[in-house]
Amino acid sequence: MKVLIVGGVAGGASAAARLRRQSEDAKIILFEKGEYISYANCGLPYYIGGTIREKERLIVTTPQLLRDRFRIDVRTKSEVVKIDREKKMVTVQNHADGTTYEESYDKLILSPGAQPKRPPLPGIDSEGIFTLRTVPDTYRIDEYIRETKAKSAVVVGAGFIGVEMAENLKKRGLDVTIVEFLDQAIASLDPEMAAILHRHLRENGVRLLFGTGVQGFEKAGNLKVKLTGDKEICADLVLLSIGVAPDSRLAKDAGLELGVGGSIKVSDTLQTSDPDIYAVGDAVCVRQLVTGGDTLIPLAGPANRQGRLAGENVLGRTEKDSGVQGSSILKVFEMTAASTGMNEKQLKAQKIPYQKTYIHPADHATYYPDSSQMSMKLLFAPDGKILGAQAVGFDGVDKRMDVLATALRLGGTVYDLEKLELCYAPPYSSAKDPVNMLGFTAANILRGDVKVFHFDEVDALDREKISLVDVRTPVEMQMGTIEGAIGIPLDVLRDRMQELPKEKPVYLFCQVGLRGYVAARILMQNGYDVKNLSGGYKTYITAKG
Amino acid sequence: MKVLIVGGVAGGASAAARLRRQSEDAKIILFEKGEYISYANCGLPYYIGGTIREKERLIVTTPQLLRDRFRIDVRTKSEVVKIDREKKMVTVQNHADGTTYEESYDKLILSPGAQPKRPPLPGIDSEGIFTLRTVPDTYRIDEYIRETKAKSAVVVGAGFIGVEMAENLKKRGLDVTIVEFLDQAIASLDPEMAAILHRHLRENGVRLLFGTGVQGFEKAGNLKVKLTGDKEICADLVLLSIGVAPDSRLAKDAGLELGVGGSIKVSDTLQTSDPDIYAVGDAVCVRQLVTGGDTLIPLAGPANRQGRLAGENVLGRTEKDSGVQGSSILKVFEMTAASTGMNEKQLKAQKIPYQKTYIHPADHATYYPDSSQMSMKLLFAPDGKILGAQAVGFDGVDKRMDVLATALRLGGTVYDLEKLELCYAPPYSSAKDPVNMLGFTAANILRGDVKVFHFDEVDALDREKISLVDVRTPVEMQMGTIEGAIGIPLDVLRDRMQELPKEKPVYLFCQVGLRGYVAARILMQNGYDVKNLSGGYKTYITAKG
Ligand SMILES: Cc1cc2nc3c(=O)[nH]c(=O)nc-3n(C[C@H](O)[C@H](O)[C@H](O)COP(=O)(O)OP(=O)(O)OC[C@H]3O[C@@H](n4cnc5c(N)ncnc54)[C@H](O)[C@@H]3O)c2cc1C
Ligand SMILES: Cc1cc2nc3c(=O)[nH]c(=O)nc-3n(C[C@H](O)[C@H](O)[C@H](O)COP(=O)(O)OP(=O)(O)OC[C@H]3O[C@@H](n4cnc5c(N)ncnc54)[C@H](O)[C@@H]3O)c2cc1C
Ligand SMILES: CC(C)(COP(=O)(O)OP(=O)(O)OC[C@H]1O[C@@H](n2cnc3c(N)ncnc32)[C@H](O)[C@@H]1OP(=O)(O)O)[C@@H](O)C(=O)NCCC(=O)NCCS
Ligand SMILES: CC(C)(COP(=O)(O)OP(=O)(O)OC[C@H]1O[C@@H](n2cnc3c(N)ncnc32)[C@H](O)[C@@H]1OP(=O)(O)O)[C@@H](O)C(=O)NCCC(=O)NCCS
Repeated sequence: MKVLIVGGVAGGASAAARLRRQSEDAKIILFEKGEYISYANCGLPYYIGGTIREKERLIVTTPQLLRDRFRIDVRTKSEVVKIDREKKMVTVQNHADGTTYEESYDKLILSPGAQPKRPPLPGIDSEGIFTLRTVPDTYRIDEYIRETKAKSAVVVGAGFIGVEMAENLKKRGLDVTIVEFLDQAIASLDPEMAAILHRHLRENGVRLLFGTGVQGFEKAGNLKVKLTGDKEICADLVLLSIGVAPDSRLAKDAGLELGVGGSIKVSDTLQTSDPDIYAVGDAVCVRQLVTGGDTLIPLAGPANRQGRLAGENVLGRTEKDSGVQGSSILKVFEMTAASTGMNEKQLKAQKIPYQKTYIHPADHATYYPDSSQMSMKLLFAPDGKILGAQAVGFDGVDKRMDVLATALRLGGTVYDLEKLELCYAPPYSSAKDPVNMLGFTAANILRGDVKVFHFDEVDALDREKISLVDVRTPVEMQMGTIEGAIGIPLDVLRDRMQELPKEKPVYLFCQVGLRGYVAARILMQNGYDVKNLSGGYKTYITAKG
Repeated sequence: MKVLIVGGVAGGASAAARLRRQSEDAKIILFEKGEYISYANCGLPYYIGGTIREKERLIVTTPQLLRDRFRIDVRTKSEVVKIDREKKMVTVQNHADGTTYEESYDKLILSPGAQPKRPPLPGIDSEGIFTLRTVPDTYRIDEYIRETKAKSAVVVGAGFIGVEMAENLKKRGLDVTIVEFLDQAIASLDPEMAAILHRHLRENGVRLLFGTGVQGFEKAGNLKVKLTGDKEICADLVLLSIGVAPDSRLAKDAGLELGVGGSIKVSDTLQTSDPDIYAVGDAVCVRQLVTGGDTLIPLAGPANRQGRLAGENVLGRTEKDSGVQGSSILKVFEMTAASTGMNEKQLKAQKIPYQKTYIHPADHATYYPDSSQMSMKLLFAPDGKILGAQAVGFDGVDKRMDVLATALRLGGTVYDLEKLELCYAPPYSSAKDPVNMLGFTAANILRGDVKVFHFDEVDALDREKISLVDVRTPVEMQMGTIEGAIGIPLDVLRDRMQELPKEKPVYLFCQVGLRGYVAARILMQNGYDVKNLSGGYKTYITAKG
């Protein structure tokens, strides 16, 4: 069995290693068009920022190790430029010596990754405009900053790489502005969750220009970045991070079936429309675990997992890829943001029925030092199935998202979250973990124990037709409340509820939702039609930005 | 509906709050024999150590708040001394004024907790011998240290509270010795995992005396602690932490059915043998989630959850408690140890078939600064079902155990762990998370891709009949290897395997198990009968202590 692999990083190297472990006999050739294989794409921004200092650190496995340990014929600077499916041959261009040759295969695995998008804007090829995907890209940016003593940067696009680079350029001492066409950073988050990051980015000195497109560049000393609305902004360096496009050129030329966004279409055994050709990673179209629909989720975990699977399936196994849920996480200065599954924007767009709950729990028992507050959002189906989750905070965000991702993967419901028995000691959590709290608050909604309203409904509420009640203390109210709210602190609500006319629906809120919930339970049982503001004033005011 | 609750802390206060939210009409009386309700039992050691500085911090909710917000009639210093089930009456002793009175009930919820064990040893009542369960216990220890300027302590029992107290007494400046009858600390861990903590405790200056019982005490200036084997040891303070016994006196006197260890027997709706009496928390017998058997798991998470459930079930709901898995966690100086489900000792004792795997992964990508190594153990059934897990390390242990606890709770298998899609960015994890790695290594065993042997089989291997091969590098071997091992580094194994006679089984090992696994795959496919040492030399040498 002779297996050729195109692409030598996350998906390709994983497939090669797994394949070798499964078969000593297979002849395995790994083609990588670049100079490096098996590198830490995800670490690249941190090299630029100086958190990762040694170049070697960026290389996870060397060609030598893959040769010695796995007897893989690693060919770097070798680009596969054509697939002849008929003859089961590929054409390889050797960039070292300029030669071209053919290589036959029994099975072919494609893991060519994705390409940073570079729209054909005027001046896009000016010096000082970069994208970041590979090790050489990284060195180029690093050297440019060093040599030109760059003092300022514009980051175009506020996705994961854009925000990570903003942080790292800032750490490197540059003045940083992010320009983003949308109204928010990190599109996998919903805007009210992203708003927390916006504040943190600004606090850390990163300028944010939302709702702003780039129309072109001009090199004149430094770089002029021309923005929509006839504005412009100057910088020494521009990083383009407006997303990636699946690299499917080879597949397309070979007549393989394509999917969403020009990605390579694969079956659940990771076979392309040609069963002798497998494809994995950023280049392929995946099945969204929650919806079953086709989508693109260019992340390292899935690429590695798919590589491992393809590496065994080429030998005849038929292990199925179980779909991708899009669990992702991001460090932003001191904060962490993470999500899994579908977000609300996607659920709305796909008209999938959902409900949601917000909470703002402490990451661990508040009586133990150094606890901090997280903001969490859970999206769930009317039958309780978990659809997606988001969290932003300081400590403990990664843990909760991994728990939620696990529950989602295993088909869990909000009722399951109520029952999870997580590890508790004061430095780590609370006896009722934040994930349990998400379960409680969600299940309370579904069981009808409480009705909720959301931050985005507040401003449209007709203050004449409803009672809007702030159940916090007068001191809290003084520090800011919602326009038109009357204050009845929770602890005196039972005595003062006659102030509220029974015929008017009551819209309650407190700081995070807990007291509002308790108040709602009191009023409901006294015959009121009540709704509690999920996530409380905190979600409302954060979303206001 | 009139509901009486006995015990005002984790289970009792949770039941009271939930019950009020469910019913404005219920008359709720909460009896607490002590002075404080709703306190942070789990924080008490940290008050003594000085990490928690303010007394108020130990109180989670005051009686006043429970009265104002929940209209709960909170009666502290009020001990329920008798239940008359016939008349549905309890007798209450008011410790404030010495009076006794009766109170009727429709439903009764018992959450009396547990009592620290105090064996009737000679001298046990001497001054300076303490147990730790309540706020007053905490103040007593704190004052005693302050007033007597205690310089040394003996902690009897190396369970959670014992180890936490050892750390905190040490932080307080005392010289600390732990005396433990068993051969290990933290019985919920298996000995080879606990061994990691032993070293860390010793490195932090805590003396450990295992396999040592206490036979008595003598007050003579300071305290003489008489040990088995005619030894003795002196200290200014003794903390007894040899476990807790369910406080079921009331229940027993009332003729309620009892379970394991004298606990209160309850149904899955948390009803005792008298359906009008519910019981929760440390006092009750729970169903082990994994085995379905009866057991005692005195932890705050379950107590809170059961309290919440009882608080709604008294109103006629029949929500079922889904069993307890014993997820627990412990901070030991800089380290964290956590576990969930069954440990190996328990599986062996209950003759439940299992397999196991060990790994020692980094908590996050090693190319990103400050990663540290964890040690993890997974126990699983022949069909792949997760039975239990343990982990010890620095960062990231709590996260992985919560993920594993979630998978276990949802009935997950090792094959599910392979597929989990957890959040990955370099500061948080690796593209293949440690939990995935547990899944891979376990599934590889079950699929027959590799056979493993374990650290505790090593010494008994007949070196004549087998080949014991260290596949690490010569440099690594020089720093220590297993007696009788020959060295064939992995990367030259294919060239040198003819040195190994085919008729002898080959027992391979490397540092953590990964290279041994790759070597095993090579040899298996070349016709050898091979086993790889799970967890490698690291598990072996750690277990040696
Ligand atoms: C800066 C940055 C940060 C990231 N951070 C994270 C993160 O924190 N978490 C996360 O989950 N993901 C992150 N990612 C995404 C992650 O790196 C990718 O999802 C993953 O690497 C995809 O694996 P792949 O094998 O599909 O593609 P790649 O890893 O990109 O590998 C594809 C390789 O194929 C080669 N190739 C392409 N065509 C050919 C050809 N015709 N012939 C030969 N070779 C070819 C390319 O040169 C490339 O080296 C990050 C990516 C970048 C760029
Ligand atoms: C020092 C310490 C550290 C701990 N650390 C952790 C940890 O990190 N993680 C964890 O999960 N668990 C921990 N625990 C265990 C946890 O605190 C218990 O599991 C939990 O409190 C049990 O709840 P409960 O309601 O059953 O009992 P308790 O919380 O003990 O409450 C029982 C109450 O009932 C009262 N009572 C008893 N009998 C009567 C009566 N007849 N009339 C009136 N009142 C009565 C008692 O005075 C007591 O206040 C720790 C416990 C201690 C002592
Ligand atoms: C590293 C790389 C070459 C793949 O190598 P790999 O050998 O499959 O992966 P790992 O080194 O993580 O080892 C995993 C294997 O070791 C096994 N293993 C891990 N720890 C083990 C242990 N303690 N005992 C036994 N086996 C162990 C696993 O079971 C798995 O084998 P399997 O797939 O046959 O089940 C490839 O993933 C790569 O190039 N990664 C870097 C690029 C990248 O991912 N970039 C994006 C993220 S920055
Ligand atoms: C605090 C204590 C009195 C119980 O009070 P509680 O009100 O049930 O618990 P919490 O304050 O944690 O709040 C949980 C409730 O608020 C709701 N809630 C939490 N956050 C919310 C939010 N943002 N929006 C709406 N509701 C919210 C939950 O749904 C839950 O209500 P439910 O049970 O009716 O579903 C009791 O647990 C206690 O005494 N604890 C301290 C003692 C202890 O546990 N010791 C051992 C560990 S140290």
